[in-house]
Amino acid sequence: MPLADRLAAYAAVASELGVDAVSLVPGPNFNRAVQHAFSSHERPLLLVIPADRPPAALVPNLELGSWAQVGFDGAVFNWRDQDGYAAAFGDLMRHLSITSLAVEGQVMRVFVHHALKTAQPDLTILDAEREISALRMIKTPQDIAALQSAIDLSERALKDTLARVKLGQTEAEIERMLVQRLFEEGADDLAFAPIVAAGDASAMPHAKARPDYRVKAGDTLLIDFGARKNGFCSDITRTVFLDHVTDEGRAVYDTVLRANLAGLAVTRAGVTAHEIDDAATSVLEDSPFADRIRTKTGHGLGREVHEAPYVMRGNHMVLPAGTVYTNEPGLYRLGGFGVRIEDDVLITDDGYETLTHFPKELTVLSC
Amino acid sequence: MPLADRLAAYAAVASELGVDAVSLVPGPNFNRAVQHAFSSHERPLLLVIPADRPPAALVPNLELGSWAQVGFDGAVFNWRDQDGYAAAFGDLMRHLSITSLAVEGQVMRVFVHHALKTAQPDLTILDAEREISALRMIKTPQDIAALQSAIDLSERALKDTLARVKLGQTEAEIERMLVQRLFEEGADDLAFAPIVAAGDASAMPHAKARPDYRVKAGDTLLIDFGARKNGFCSDITRTVFLDHVTDEGRAVYDTVLRANLAGLAVTRAGVTAHEIDDAATSVLEDSPFADRIRTKTGHGLGREVHEAPYVMRGNHMVLPAGTVYTNEPGLYRLGGFGVRIEDDVLITDDGYETLTHFPKELTVLSC
Repeated sequence: MPLADRLAAYAAVASELGVDAVSLVPGPNFNRAVQHAFSSHERPLLLVIPADRPPAALVPNLELGSWAQVGFDGAVFNWRDQDGYAAAFGDLMRHLSITSLAVEGQVMRVFVHHALKTAQPDLTILDAEREISALRMIKTPQDIAALQSAIDLSERALKDTLARVKLGQTEAEIERMLVQRLFEEGADDLAFAPIVAAGDASAMPHAKARPDYRVKAGDTLLIDFGARKNGFCSDITRTVFLDHVTDEGRAVYDTVLRANLAGLAVTRAGVTAHEIDDAATSVLEDSPFADRIRTKTGHGLGREVHEAPYVMRGNHMVLPAGTVYTNEPGLYRLGGFGVRIEDDVLITDDGYETLTHFPKELTVLSC
Repeated sequence: MPLADRLAAYAAVASELGVDAVSLVPGPNFNRAVQHAFSSHERPLLLVIPADRPPAALVPNLELGSWAQVGFDGAVFNWRDQDGYAAAFGDLMRHLSITSLAVEGQVMRVFVHHALKTAQPDLTILDAEREISALRMIKTPQDIAALQSAIDLSERALKDTLARVKLGQTEAEIERMLVQRLFEEGADDLAFAPIVAAGDASAMPHAKARPDYRVKAGDTLLIDFGARKNGFCSDITRTVFLDHVTDEGRAVYDTVLRANLAGLAVTRAGVTAHEIDDAATSVLEDSPFADRIRTKTGHGLGREVHEAPYVMRGNHMVLPAGTVYTNEPGLYRLGGFGVRIEDDVLITDDGYETLTHFPKELTVLSC
């Protein structure tokens, strides 16, 4: 798809929202639009796509070389570090002559918001994160191939890592083995800082690996991690038991697995995010462990590890074929242990395909 | 230093700015304040430190377990995914009873800004990125040890990688060797996506490694990369020549090296950021290559790979002992080649200490 067609889709978003233009700043939407990886830093870089006129960009001078590769034929306002960016924002806004702008509220930072308002105090800025990012929701075959590649290499790394886990290793040591294997398998980057959490730490959904906690017999070991490959992310969680499992552990694991499967069972094109979460969460609620529910079922996955659709009750967004989401119910007893099982799921016309293939049966590692 | 003392420093910033409170969102200031690594995602997490009253926080319910480890004894307003965060913002703002708030403009995103303004439309929000982040500028001995550790492992990885470079390898292959070595050497994460740029790509300060460009005799090879270790970042650039170097390459390299040394020569406690940039940039301007200048001399380095002080003309901030900055002059001829030499420099009372020790002499790799 040529750049002009991709930008036209954002112009259409502006029209639908009834605003004069949509802006993008470096991040997943920006990089999808220009098919080039720009990163977000202290120098503002901004692409503005009006509903019915040619787009324009504000580009740091030192990025002009990279920007030339994008093939953008609109007006470009560049600025140098020595001069600051205020004048370029002024020139851009005079050129655009707009009074309302839809922005990505989860990506644009306050200093860019302030620069826009300083350049044009009467500009109305609307947070249209949802509508702008919705263009990323339906994955192309190329997107899915990139996701599958990130997932496959992650699963190979997880398999090897679990085979090397020994009682007495620290969480941090296990994390290091995993990270090394991810890069050996070809990861471009980590999708996020891995969670390697044993015992009581597994009860904290976003725990960090501890350098001083040694895994012991009877611990749960929860590993939630992902790789970035060709711009796309994997996000996988498996929870295993070390040496042995208690009856409570077995019952909790079984409940979480049934919730995961219940979420999958209702997945097909046309389902709502609410319905998937409701199916999975109802299993947890109907169990003896309802007081251990602490999270929604999942989130979209693509260029960002957390993106639309957010799979939670109350989100009645209808999910089309081509949507990829994480199905990751969990149960967490603070001070005790937690279990989470997370798959990456592609919604298809007649059902779903799990892109993750790592076994989900209760696993007790002999280590 | 106990949490209360660290928070008191932010309360003092609020007082100095004449605002009612300072807020922090997950990022380098937040993580420094709470001494715990929280990441930024779609769930708002906000710490508000009033000038003269106890602090308060807004925390996603699923982060309460991690938050408990912080040892925070102020009011906490938590919210669940199912309910959304609007009510918690309302409760927080009623509790705080403030009319002005200083925020980190380079960290806080627009959706949090909107949530604050929705909860309290008359709230004045000031971008105080500079004043808030200034507290990170003077590094403690622990900070410097963490920086040195990140730098040392990075230099070991660079040395091994350069020893393995062969003509005909792609930029992406060289990048992969570097990244694998970084993790083998103990990196917690990449500090940023590495730049591995040969030939014409080296003329783009933020080039990405190309999977289809094979390095050839006579190319420059510019490698700009860093690791994250214990929360701190390294940032190093070296440019080498493959097989042979032209007279132009030699002259440009010599000019950049003299600029780097000129920046170092004026470095001591009490120098301004302007003076360092001026010393380095003047060398470039006085050379036959003045039209190849595209960047300022450098930036602060610490928990973030780009942070205050920004080492550029016009920034008359006085730099105290304990500041760490990157000294990275460069010359870039678009369509030709670029050279950059980057050191990480600690400012001391009577001069400086380069934390990077990788050789800077012109290097022609026999490969």
